[in-house]
Amino acid sequence: MTWVQDEGFTADAPFGPQTLPYGVVDGQLAVRVGNQALPLRPIAHEFGALADVVSADSLNPLLAAGCPAWTEVRARLTELTTALSAPRGATLLPIDDAVLPFTVADYVDFYSSKYHAENAGRIFRPKDEPLLPNWLHLPVGYHGRAGTVVVSGTPVVRPNGQRRSKDGPVFGPSQKLDIEAEVGFVCGGPVTSRVSTSAAADHVFGVVLVNDWSARDIQGWEAQPLGPFLGKSFATSISAWVTPLDAFSAARVHTPAHKLLDYLVEDAPWGLDLVLEVDWNGTVVSRPRFADMYYSFAQQLAHMTVNGATVRPGDLFASGTVSGPNRDQLGCFLEMSWGGRDKITLAGGEQRTFLEDDDTVRITATAPGPNGSVVGLAEVAGTVSPALP
Amino acid sequence: MTWVQDEGFTADAPFGPQTLPYGVVDGQLAVRVGNQALPLRPIAHEFGALADVVSADSLNPLLAAGCPAWTEVRARLTELTTALSAPRGATLLPIDDAVLPFTVADYVDFYSSKYHAENAGRIFRPKDEPLLPNWLHLPVGYHGRAGTVVVSGTPVVRPNGQRRSKDGPVFGPSQKLDIEAEVGFVCGGPVTSRVSTSAAADHVFGVVLVNDWSARDIQGWEAQPLGPFLGKSFATSISAWVTPLDAFSAARVHTPAHKLLDYLVEDAPWGLDLVLEVDWNGTVVSRPRFADMYYSFAQQLAHMTVNGATVRPGDLFASGTVSGPNRDQLGCFLEMSWGGRDKITLAGGEQRTFLEDDDTVRITATAPGPNGSVVGLAEVAGTVSPALP
Repeated sequence: MTWVQDEGFTADAPFGPQTLPYGVVDGQLAVRVGNQALPLRPIAHEFGALADVVSADSLNPLLAAGCPAWTEVRARLTELTTALSAPRGATLLPIDDAVLPFTVADYVDFYSSKYHAENAGRIFRPKDEPLLPNWLHLPVGYHGRAGTVVVSGTPVVRPNGQRRSKDGPVFGPSQKLDIEAEVGFVCGGPVTSRVSTSAAADHVFGVVLVNDWSARDIQGWEAQPLGPFLGKSFATSISAWVTPLDAFSAARVHTPAHKLLDYLVEDAPWGLDLVLEVDWNGTVVSRPRFADMYYSFAQQLAHMTVNGATVRPGDLFASGTVSGPNRDQLGCFLEMSWGGRDKITLAGGEQRTFLEDDDTVRITATAPGPNGSVVGLAEVAGTVSPALP
Repeated sequence: MTWVQDEGFTADAPFGPQTLPYGVVDGQLAVRVGNQALPLRPIAHEFGALADVVSADSLNPLLAAGCPAWTEVRARLTELTTALSAPRGATLLPIDDAVLPFTVADYVDFYSSKYHAENAGRIFRPKDEPLLPNWLHLPVGYHGRAGTVVVSGTPVVRPNGQRRSKDGPVFGPSQKLDIEAEVGFVCGGPVTSRVSTSAAADHVFGVVLVNDWSARDIQGWEAQPLGPFLGKSFATSISAWVTPLDAFSAARVHTPAHKLLDYLVEDAPWGLDLVLEVDWNGTVVSRPRFADMYYSFAQQLAHMTVNGATVRPGDLFASGTVSGPNRDQLGCFLEMSWGGRDKITLAGGEQRTFLEDDDTVRITATAPGPNGSVVGLAEVAGTVSPALP
């Protein structure tokens, strides 16, 4: 029994006291308790020297405050939300109006599912080895557009762009609009470089779900030799709620054993046993397992900074499409439809290869929590709007 | 005659009254007058409603204020710096301590020199057509790392990373550290999407020189299939002073005629007749002509936003390596040494292919200004430090 009156605030629900993710509601940093939001500004007096940090209008000051502050605020929130009586000033708000919880500094997207990379290789280069030679030695990645990271629920306007035709390139709305179901990591702590795998947890604040919307026809024409650009930069959606890394203490697993250069070797298991669920217009079309990823976030962060690149509070890096070995574990429609060859059947009989206007995709995920509880990652959802004229 | 006592503040010097670039010195927005800086906070009372904008500690508020404000502030600065007597409160400071003049939002790097793209193609893929099929139809580009854009003068630490060897990848300091001499464009005005070529000047505040330092061995191993990542993300240097686009009214030229899809067609010449100069340890090794570029900044911005991607104040996009048809017009050492095959001889007889520790590279540029004057772009310089152990 706690003062928080919310049926979703229990240990067997995804947003119970074991989860406590952060978001921004009503212009204030807030914590999610079940299906409501507890804004922190009215109860900032409960946080001592961190009152200013929790009174902010975004997560950025808490990200910058560093790991000891993250631990302290979370411990205090656990006490406050599980107490019998409410702290002075506490109010609960609906979660529906949550906005982008932090300003994204740099956004990096990796490519760390071996199943996804092999499938993409087989689809795009059917005559060659599916994996390129570097893939088994480093987490391949690239920079995306930070300015077009949007919060879950933001409509996704079908992008216009150039695509191939037999008579040369043509311009118009993408005809192969796709999703990529991914897991994202939000950085914090001091600006620093060369974060070793063993120090990753000091620089990763929390976890979100990511839908890296992709226009496959634009991407296919533009992306050589410098990589994806306009095929991805129109929108990248993330969860409205950032779940602290500390919530995943019971979900840690080893990534698959593989021989790597020293700077990529982990001394602790930083894979996470998350199961994602991809829902297309009400039909669950896939349940990718994040535990199948080949590289962990600790390895990705170590790689990203080994050349001296700094990492800043608000940096976001994503895993790349999460795909497993089975047909019902794939993280994008490119793979599910095998490049558009096979139809995907939705409830009600609708058939799809890529996204049509007004389609909605929702991605959710859960992980095992402490003592048999369940930890949820807030959904990332989006509905496709028609292309602009 | 003006009250500004500086021998460099004349119409035939690069930083005379025709130029007036902005930077940040002593924690204040400042304008460069010859070889000194005029901080704007002490004379903010001269700027009416824009006093707050010019009193800022960076260029970002002026970038956000939009094109009419840019015109107004520049006109007032022209009056104030060319007057016989100094405005109340005016002081002049050395320019040596200028810091990064704005916070970079997103950084995009293009690849818009046909000579450079052809040379890179011939070096890396000698058996194939030098240009990939998309190159003549769109300005190929990719996102770089905004958080590692640094101001001219910042030491560039040789990056560590993976590179190919015959026994598989090895880790260590890059052995092929290179420059890329580029021209960068700084965005401002309201957050917007779909900037047509004809509206580009309303969203591009000014121009800097860029050295996009590149570790060719790291890049060569990592960059397939998603493009450059750690081979570029360790440092990108820019000029300390941002020259307003308005200063280049006499330098506008047409880009080479070529057939393009409608959204890339220009109704005005947005090529710029800049000549760059690349100085390596005191030897000028190249003078690339920016007028030779195949795509203009207006075409780059129109392309970058045609898919609906927003552009924000502080976005930076760079031209890609500026190379011309001749050996003494190349913008990187990869081309000058033809992939490391040929030695480049410096004054004093030193020979180079790529950069050695303690090497210094300075890139400068000038353009024709109004009435026979010369408009300068402030140098971008950097010295290589040894790799970290």
